[in-house]
Amino acid sequence: MFDPVTLKLNVDPFILSALREDMVNGDVSTNSVMPRPQLGEADLICKQEGIVCGLQIFERVFKLLDESENVCADFYVTDGDSVKNGQPVAKIHGDIRVLLSGERTALNYLQRMSGIATYTFATASLLSGTKIRLLDTRKTSPNNRIFEKYAVRVGGGNNHRYNLSDGVLLKDNHIGAAGGVKNAIRMAKEYAPFVRKIEVETETLEMVKDAVEAGADIIMLDNMSYEQMKEAVAWIDGRAQIEISGNVTSENIAKLTDLGVDFISSGALTHSAPILDFSLKNLHAI
Amino acid sequence: MFDPVTLKLNVDPFILSALREDMVNGDVSTNSVMPRPQLGEADLICKQEGIVCGLQIFERVFKLLDESENVCADFYVTDGDSVKNGQPVAKIHGDIRVLLSGERTALNYLQRMSGIATYTFATASLLSGTKIRLLDTRKTSPNNRIFEKYAVRVGGGNNHRYNLSDGVLLKDNHIGAAGGVKNAIRMAKEYAPFVRKIEVETETLEMVKDAVEAGADIIMLDNMSYEQMKEAVAWIDGRAQIEISGNVTSENIAKLTDLGVDFISSGALTHSAPILDFSLKNLHAI
Amino acid sequence: MFDPVTLKLNVDPFILSALREDMVNGDVSTNSVMPRPQLGEADLICKQEGIVCGLQIFERVFKLLDESENVCADFYVTDGDSVKNGQPVAKIHGDIRVLLSGERTALNYLQRMSGIATYTFATASLLSGTKIRLLDTRKTSPNNRIFEKYAVRVGGGNNHRYNLSDGVLLKDNHIGAAGGVKNAIRMAKEYAPFVRKIEVETETLEMVKDAVEAGADIIMLDNMSYEQMKEAVAWIDGRAQIEISGNVTSENIAKLTDLGVDFISSGALTHSAPILDFSLKNLHAI
Amino acid sequence: MFDPVTLKLNVDPFILSALREDMVNGDVSTNSVMPRPQLGEADLICKQEGIVCGLQIFERVFKLLDESENVCADFYVTDGDSVKNGQPVAKIHGDIRVLLSGERTALNYLQRMSGIATYTFATASLLSGTKIRLLDTRKTSPNNRIFEKYAVRVGGGNNHRYNLSDGVLLKDNHIGAAGGVKNAIRMAKEYAPFVRKIEVETETLEMVKDAVEAGADIIMLDNMSYEQMKEAVAWIDGRAQIEISGNVTSENIAKLTDLGVDFISSGALTHSAPILDFSLKNLHAI
Amino acid sequence: MFDPVTLKLNVDPFILSALREDMVNGDVSTNSVMPRPQLGEADLICKQEGIVCGLQIFERVFKLLDESENVCADFYVTDGDSVKNGQPVAKIHGDIRVLLSGERTALNYLQRMSGIATYTFATASLLSGTKIRLLDTRKTSPNNRIFEKYAVRVGGGNNHRYNLSDGVLLKDNHIGAAGGVKNAIRMAKEYAPFVRKIEVETETLEMVKDAVEAGADIIMLDNMSYEQMKEAVAWIDGRAQIEISGNVTSENIAKLTDLGVDFISSGALTHSAPILDFSLKNLHAI
Amino acid sequence: MFDPVTLKLNVDPFILSALREDMVNGDVSTNSVMPRPQLGEADLICKQEGIVCGLQIFERVFKLLDESENVCADFYVTDGDSVKNGQPVAKIHGDIRVLLSGERTALNYLQRMSGIATYTFATASLLSGTKIRLLDTRKTSPNNRIFEKYAVRVGGGNNHRYNLSDGVLLKDNHIGAAGGVKNAIRMAKEYAPFVRKIEVETETLEMVKDAVEAGADIIMLDNMSYEQMKEAVAWIDGRAQIEISGNVTSENIAKLTDLGVDFISSGALTHSAPILDFSLKNLHAI
Repeated sequence: MFDPVTLKLNVDPFILSALREDMVNGDVSTNSVMPRPQLGEADLICKQEGIVCGLQIFERVFKLLDESENVCADFYVTDGDSVKNGQPVAKIHGDIRVLLSGERTALNYLQRMSGIATYTFATASLLSGTKIRLLDTRKTSPNNRIFEKYAVRVGGGNNHRYNLSDGVLLKDNHIGAAGGVKNAIRMAKEYAPFVRKIEVETETLEMVKDAVEAGADIIMLDNMSYEQMKEAVAWIDGRAQIEISGNVTSENIAKLTDLGVDFISSGALTHSAPILDFSLKNLHAI
Repeated sequence: MFDPVTLKLNVDPFILSALREDMVNGDVSTNSVMPRPQLGEADLICKQEGIVCGLQIFERVFKLLDESENVCADFYVTDGDSVKNGQPVAKIHGDIRVLLSGERTALNYLQRMSGIATYTFATASLLSGTKIRLLDTRKTSPNNRIFEKYAVRVGGGNNHRYNLSDGVLLKDNHIGAAGGVKNAIRMAKEYAPFVRKIEVETETLEMVKDAVEAGADIIMLDNMSYEQMKEAVAWIDGRAQIEISGNVTSENIAKLTDLGVDFISSGALTHSAPILDFSLKNLHAI
Repeated sequence: MFDPVTLKLNVDPFILSALREDMVNGDVSTNSVMPRPQLGEADLICKQEGIVCGLQIFERVFKLLDESENVCADFYVTDGDSVKNGQPVAKIHGDIRVLLSGERTALNYLQRMSGIATYTFATASLLSGTKIRLLDTRKTSPNNRIFEKYAVRVGGGNNHRYNLSDGVLLKDNHIGAAGGVKNAIRMAKEYAPFVRKIEVETETLEMVKDAVEAGADIIMLDNMSYEQMKEAVAWIDGRAQIEISGNVTSENIAKLTDLGVDFISSGALTHSAPILDFSLKNLHAI
Repeated sequence: MFDPVTLKLNVDPFILSALREDMVNGDVSTNSVMPRPQLGEADLICKQEGIVCGLQIFERVFKLLDESENVCADFYVTDGDSVKNGQPVAKIHGDIRVLLSGERTALNYLQRMSGIATYTFATASLLSGTKIRLLDTRKTSPNNRIFEKYAVRVGGGNNHRYNLSDGVLLKDNHIGAAGGVKNAIRMAKEYAPFVRKIEVETETLEMVKDAVEAGADIIMLDNMSYEQMKEAVAWIDGRAQIEISGNVTSENIAKLTDLGVDFISSGALTHSAPILDFSLKNLHAI
Repeated sequence: MFDPVTLKLNVDPFILSALREDMVNGDVSTNSVMPRPQLGEADLICKQEGIVCGLQIFERVFKLLDESENVCADFYVTDGDSVKNGQPVAKIHGDIRVLLSGERTALNYLQRMSGIATYTFATASLLSGTKIRLLDTRKTSPNNRIFEKYAVRVGGGNNHRYNLSDGVLLKDNHIGAAGGVKNAIRMAKEYAPFVRKIEVETETLEMVKDAVEAGADIIMLDNMSYEQMKEAVAWIDGRAQIEISGNVTSENIAKLTDLGVDFISSGALTHSAPILDFSLKNLHAI
Repeated sequence: MFDPVTLKLNVDPFILSALREDMVNGDVSTNSVMPRPQLGEADLICKQEGIVCGLQIFERVFKLLDESENVCADFYVTDGDSVKNGQPVAKIHGDIRVLLSGERTALNYLQRMSGIATYTFATASLLSGTKIRLLDTRKTSPNNRIFEKYAVRVGGGNNHRYNLSDGVLLKDNHIGAAGGVKNAIRMAKEYAPFVRKIEVETETLEMVKDAVEAGADIIMLDNMSYEQMKEAVAWIDGRAQIEISGNVTSENIAKLTDLGVDFISSGALTHSAPILDFSLKNLHAI
């Protein structure tokens, strides 16, 4: 769950924006047939096997729509639980008009977050028994990062840096601009000497050596062959943490587990996970 | 392409929000190594076969970041073109600091939009030679609908209603609240008599009959069997347009083409299309 | 009344903006004399004969100003009721400071909405006994459309399209750009095939004929003479709905009722209705 | 004209909000028939006799929609000029798509502002030859005050306070809370001793006397009879400025001119002026 | 205290912005160790002698972070009270996670506001026994004016105009543009005849004379010598209020008290007051 | 200087908010006397000895007010330079109305930023010749952090974490909640394993030992005596970086330089630096 402060400050504005995307001057269908409040309830049903994620957001959508405090949900599972096709996961109560108008947005969040948690869980499972942590990337849907990075954690992954401001990652272009790996690391330490760790993206063993010597905290081995990676790990020899990156998918990740690296990162966790299907059923007055 | 008015009023606010999601107080990596402006250029390379979509948005991200008017892109293709793995699709010029800081957000939009266009194109192809139009749904990523509905059009699909305010779609719960299909249609015509068409979701032949009699403009056959749909189409007999909905995917869509319906809608177009991979390569000073 | 979802998402932001327009750093008059909370009540009195509209908004203004939940109103009438000069329509309770600071904004909404409802009611009465529906236009006060279109409905009118995004209305310039009525309709059906109806503005019988043949859903007869309109209606003969437009006022509308059209639209409903006067009286501590 | 700073900081946000009110995801009519840019021009024609006001805002609407700098207007008149039915007042150039999408919002501002200027001019004319200044009130359309107060000035009126924060006006309820006129004035001078003038609303001669003795800067005679006002003016005898208020309209204002007061205020200037009609004609490609 | 309306409309938006400045995607320290809600309390301790100011804002920060209504503070002092080093001034209760995440922002407001109140109090004390009022200026921290002007009042000062829109102050450049003091005053009276007072900044006796003759309400003697000021005061002789300005500090203010002026203004009150230190101590679960 | 991306995304919104704080419906003084544009220029003069900082922001204020591109500044110094009383530091050109309306806000930023740079420079000088870096804190003015942290860097200091989201700093309350230093560090490493460094605030040698053993990256010695600090540094012996904190001021900092620590942090840099005075002089038409 998001803590109440994050929810209020950093999550709610995105939800409200999404709701306004879906409603400009009323819900013409609902308003046509329901001119008056009517308490009701509905069942939230899972329609695929997977990991559920985003239940708090599902409920929050409705709560933000109705300040009367009539809306509340009874959850039978919590984020991170396995769910099956046909399994009821919650019952939601409230003014039926609110339930109808918020349904699509609430499901859009829940389905996407659960899809990412499910895909992450499957991928992370391939690393179980190792000390390697699975990392996400910044390849998230625009304006959905806070939801998607949370879903990665729920699925058993960990988060790489959140944005460009909270971590240093020196890529080939930064290195080129600085005139080499060593210069780049020195400049980054000078610019941001305090809290942040310095990570460097490397493509050759030569770059790896420079990075270690210049004191990088984390070295990313980007798109290297298995043999290259093996050599790099040996050379680094514990002097920096190591991240493997580059087209890592659930198909090929298993081959990488014996290299002795600390992290494997995968953009697919957030950019290509299909949704997990849920449905709001049996809405009726009470 | 988006026209300039839509771009300014309805698209830019989302892009700016996405950029602020990725940057709070500067790009610490870029600022470390590039304290001064430096004009440069880079190649935008496609890394998978598919349909490109979102080139204007890709460029707009950078333009919104730099008011100096140094940024511009030369495009070798246009939205809707087929692209291949390894194919250069654009060259982008500008202050290298701007290119580095905007890269991820620009690619996140381009990859997602191209992914949806690609998936839509593949699905729509299965309907070619018929008069059936492929429709999207409101199952879009929150705060990305304007981009995703555009991508559906680029891929050869058409857009169902944009949001809850601009079209009437009476679902089972609306019908229940109204006390039946006929009442629901009558109330909707009373509430919104003018521009909008009335669509009704039906699950049985009985409901279909009621909908036709009450004068629905469009009748959705929701999760019906092939036989049921056949019977419904025969019964409607041109008195309303017909939409098929319910777990339509590229696997099963071909079977539905001979039913004589007007529309087939699929949520998967927007909620489950994997991205199409692009990369910004060869960034160098000029 | 607005439903709670529309109120929260689409109405409140305008009210808050209006309140901030009227207050930047406190209400210096009230703060001078009332440093402490003081519960009080006041009477809302109507000062002209007409149709009341906007009572919910009147109360909402105060509720948005004070989260203590002390504010509430007892209403003696509901939107759409006839009211007379001197008639008390509500009693409002709350912190006197809140009542004083919100009074002007609350009355500004109520007076304008009631003025429009009153004017609409008078105009719509001239159509009573016919099947013709009275429509508004987009000639609303900027940033007040949601309030004014609601007031038209309360007064017995109906709403034409809400904005440029939710309905197709092809005017002379669109037709010119498309190269004729038929082309314009064809292009609109191609661009927006699904939910929306296509309306065409016509000025000659020739254009009417083209519109019918091309399958327009609604044909607007714009600024035509009575004889022209009669001829057009005969020619259309039920194949499309018909809207009359162009300087329709309460003076001349009666002459148009026997033409057999479906809609008459009038910009004056929203752009030239004078307000209906209300006053907050007898504010006292309790 | 608004100066460039006011325009940018305080006017543009309202215009942009109004444009987004009228467009959510594109102009479906225009986009249907005009997929590509096309320079064009159109004539702005006045359709009623009156005072023109808001030409800068009319043009600004289009400029805010198109950053290409193609939009510009040639004006044949300036704010405050008399215009006649049929008189061309401007020619506007730009991308036809921009002209079509912005037309309604631009005209809505121009018509309302010109209507207020026209009504104010007529009312102020009744005071010509006297030293009395005509004042507006805060009875403006929500979120349109900056436009409407400007129109009053253009029409020859003057502005009363802009909002609750920039002037002290002690009404009956403030006086009641303070325990009398003298206390209220004393408390206001204590709370806001510096820049602001203190105005007091009075209903009896007794209150007038108290107000003068307590040192009010301005005394409002509210809803008094002609005789009462005469007596009050004599008593005040130049020791404070005097404002007459209360249902002042163009019908009855002439009777008040010989009283020797400084100001007459009228809410009708902004809340009940009908629009002045304008039309955009002859839009064509160039 | 701020009244509830000002708090909601004009204060809360700044607090929320400050909180989002300090938190983008959660409080990583707190979230690491406190995954679940835990009620707690802490003591707010003053660490320097001074005048306390901003207690309501201190509490408001936490209330805005947690809508559960668990947060509340017991205050032992009120704004304007003298406090000593080590003195407990409040106990705050609530979810410990909320207390931890809001602590810094709450203290930043309290310390700054109390610092200004303390410095103002010390300066105003030097004027005690005189009729001179101490005024602040617009030299405030950007986006903190509403807090800082309030703190000046709490410390015993008074507020000069709030912003450029609510008072006329004609400086040398305005006078130059108008072609002299008299012209400038005449133009200001013409432009803004009603509520506002006209203040003029003067640097010579000649300008003072012109200002009096043209009817200025307030005359500022800017950076004049003691002798010049004496002469100016004599010349004005009660025909306008007088303000002294220009590098007034607590060191030199005492010398100015016998001049017989009405106001002395000092930018240092807001731009150079050091903070008053407070600390949140003894946070523990309950 | 801020890079163009940070300026646009993260700095401009604060400047615009500050400008709207100072102007609601026009600058009544300037509008009174300058109804028409008039190009002019003025000199920016320093009035105290110190370090200049914020020149780009000074100019940006005016540029954001006037899109005509008439505004520009010629700078004679750059951020970080020493300046003297009376020294001209820039000449600014533009529409005089823009210069007058923006002057106060521009100076408010410049004076505050230069004040912080000056104070930081003086403090950092006391550490020159050592390897100790001077750090700021989060004790900044609300909604001014991005400006104030920049000023610290210009003055020769370095930035501690920017906000609660981009660095882990475990204080006594976090440690209490976690059940001890070791648990807290373990939980933080589990929650945020990747980019961030873990800092722990310690008050006793026992806590220092636990922190080292648990693998803290940085250990803060909070309010310890000189002897305690000496012992702690010896014990740590290079196994973690060390930060000294707690009422560090320019008076006492020199005593701390021989302890062999890495960082000294001081809240006073941002919360108690007096401004550096600047003035805009000699504004004249050109």
